[in-house]
Amino acid sequence: MAAPGENLRINGDRLWNSLMDMAKIGPGVAGGNNRQTLTDADAEARALFRSWCEEAGCTMGLDAMGNMFAARAGTDPQALPVYVGSHLDTQPTGGKYDGVLGVLGGLEILRTMNDLGIKTRHPVVVTNWTNEEGTRFAPAMLASGVFAGVHDQSWAEAREDATGKTFGAELDRIGWRGDEPVGARKMHAFFELHIEQGPILEAEGKDIGVVTHGQGLSWTQVTITGKEAHTGSTPMPMRRNAGLGMARVLEAVETIARAHGPHAVGAAGHIDVYPNSRNVIPGKVVFTVDFRSPDLAVIQDMETQMKEQARKICEDMQLEVSFEKVGGFDPVTFDPGCVAAVRAAAERLGYSHRNIISGAGHDACWINQVAPTAMIMCPCVDGLSHNEAEEITKEWAAAGADVLMHAVIETAEVIT
Amino acid sequence: MAAPGENLRINGDRLWNSLMDMAKIGPGVAGGNNRQTLTDADAEARALFRSWCEEAGCTMGLDAMGNMFAARAGTDPQALPVYVGSHLDTQPTGGKYDGVLGVLGGLEILRTMNDLGIKTRHPVVVTNWTNEEGTRFAPAMLASGVFAGVHDQSWAEAREDATGKTFGAELDRIGWRGDEPVGARKMHAFFELHIEQGPILEAEGKDIGVVTHGQGLSWTQVTITGKEAHTGSTPMPMRRNAGLGMARVLEAVETIARAHGPHAVGAAGHIDVYPNSRNVIPGKVVFTVDFRSPDLAVIQDMETQMKEQARKICEDMQLEVSFEKVGGFDPVTFDPGCVAAVRAAAERLGYSHRNIISGAGHDACWINQVAPTAMIMCPCVDGLSHNEAEEITKEWAAAGADVLMHAVIETAEVIT
Repeated sequence: MAAPGENLRINGDRLWNSLMDMAKIGPGVAGGNNRQTLTDADAEARALFRSWCEEAGCTMGLDAMGNMFAARAGTDPQALPVYVGSHLDTQPTGGKYDGVLGVLGGLEILRTMNDLGIKTRHPVVVTNWTNEEGTRFAPAMLASGVFAGVHDQSWAEAREDATGKTFGAELDRIGWRGDEPVGARKMHAFFELHIEQGPILEAEGKDIGVVTHGQGLSWTQVTITGKEAHTGSTPMPMRRNAGLGMARVLEAVETIARAHGPHAVGAAGHIDVYPNSRNVIPGKVVFTVDFRSPDLAVIQDMETQMKEQARKICEDMQLEVSFEKVGGFDPVTFDPGCVAAVRAAAERLGYSHRNIISGAGHDACWINQVAPTAMIMCPCVDGLSHNEAEEITKEWAAAGADVLMHAVIETAEVIT
Repeated sequence: MAAPGENLRINGDRLWNSLMDMAKIGPGVAGGNNRQTLTDADAEARALFRSWCEEAGCTMGLDAMGNMFAARAGTDPQALPVYVGSHLDTQPTGGKYDGVLGVLGGLEILRTMNDLGIKTRHPVVVTNWTNEEGTRFAPAMLASGVFAGVHDQSWAEAREDATGKTFGAELDRIGWRGDEPVGARKMHAFFELHIEQGPILEAEGKDIGVVTHGQGLSWTQVTITGKEAHTGSTPMPMRRNAGLGMARVLEAVETIARAHGPHAVGAAGHIDVYPNSRNVIPGKVVFTVDFRSPDLAVIQDMETQMKEQARKICEDMQLEVSFEKVGGFDPVTFDPGCVAAVRAAAERLGYSHRNIISGAGHDACWINQVAPTAMIMCPCVDGLSHNEAEEITKEWAAAGADVLMHAVIETAEVIT
């Protein structure tokens, strides 16, 4: 296996221009993006990505979950492809780089390989996974999860958004359902380039995060039921205030997560109050508790404690409480060979780097179950993500794509 | 002034049937009603009420805020009318009686006076006040407030619902804006029959609440601003979680209200979390704190304490907080003469009664500023209101309307 020279670099300006062009689709209200999965904006982003891939000489595959696969041929017809990629969908108030960098960084390495006439024994395929964010259709990483055999396809297609529309119907509506069976493809390896979405690399001045593990995640939807009543004429001792019960459970979540520090985290991002009227004591609150840790036992312990404390809180307040697991995955250990390829690429290119644990879930966490997988992270300003103010520099993006290219070319076996 | 005999009663079956017929318009999902102000359902309810009033021989007035006035003539052309009434709009998950009993109870006393050929010196007018609930367009009691000179009419018309539609545009859309200037009418007196919306009368087995005072109310909209960030990759100490700040302020509201017991109450019924996504730490929460007490100084003290504690909580968590007063009224002392007429009517009819403080705001609280006013309350099951399960008995409704009729006939000076 030949190692390409340290002078081999992607085109940082071209990558940046593609990121900025993609960000014009589904603009947010504050400089970021609202390009939620299976919306018209998602369809437009897919069409632009396909046109770029076709310009780069790739053939586009499309599976029945809408996952896109742009292939650059290798020299050996028998060799399994090396896959790269991430997702083009965003949060409702998302940034321009979360996911998008991994897809367009993958496209950029194909463009650079074309420019330089680089041939590899294995094909290289750039992927756009459908519905990584999970905001519109829970859970997150839905289509890569079906690809990896984690979720049943018919269950995934029946997932509903807040208005009752299903994933399957919306996929058909935007016209991006393919014929290819989901998960039929076999992979030689998978690499995902992604922004850190945390503050560590920037704070330490590192160019590259070599991702060794992925934090596990558990989403528990909590429903607290009390009694709707007038805010004025119900004496305090007779109230069954579901909103106050929710407040006390949120405090417990904070305390539990901090007690399992420094790597564990916990919070509720989603809270719906019913009937949500100024002069009605909330009769019901539905919210989702998100716990994460690189240690499965810690996640399970935090969940157990939260449920115990929530039951106690609600019993004392004459409230009812129920729990539904609405998402989750176990902590991930990435493939040592792929991780080593990423570390070696950063070394060869002279980029500063450190091992890092991914705090967020990523498509790579599911694909790791069916192929040797690793991730590359680049810093983001102030650790900020899932926020329209998410920002990175052109240099950070280029360094990440450089490392991606070197790891891919090494793994796909460059023909010299 | 003649006192009518204790054998003079309204028709309880007819009143009940009218309540049930009205409840068919804008049905809820759980046996109650969703007939929010200035919706198509509100327009339908108004048309039904008008048709009933016309059948009863009344002439219908309509002012520029959509307030409806169904007049039964008196014998003296110079005498100011005695007004009765309440509101036909409901909460989004409201009951069949809150407000409606006061309007249709008013109609029933006109029907009974027609049946029995009762003449009064003063005209009697039944009113339907627009947007008492304030759920769709804050604040509550909006149109009676304009009538009483508390609110500016153009300000009221510019109030927006959650989708940005204005009160004025929606009033025009449903076709219920009248030509009559708001507040031009002068009143001899105003009586409002209403369900208690609290548990006291039922618990004590009393038929009638003689309302001597109205609790004051203050609505403060609190906006807490933190920083949207990924729920996985942001270490706990670096979070600025607006949702957790809200939880701590809700706990403070509870503690403050209980410390001012037994008559003070406090809660938040309205809570909106932004962006409300499962894997985004809330960057902003907007919620409304409702404090009430019959003592103005207590309300002011609770508000001051809440703001001080919220500022301290948010400062400690690196959150920003701001406050906006979005509704309120001072405690009310009703007219001693009108209150005495209500008490005398209950005595004459042999109904058990007690003095009571209204815990909720009512149109009568504003009208009390421009006319001698009193309220009559009847029990409701389990104190439940602003809830589709709100329930009363036919006998309770009839007793309330009996007392209303006697108080009105005495005040309007029956011609014997």
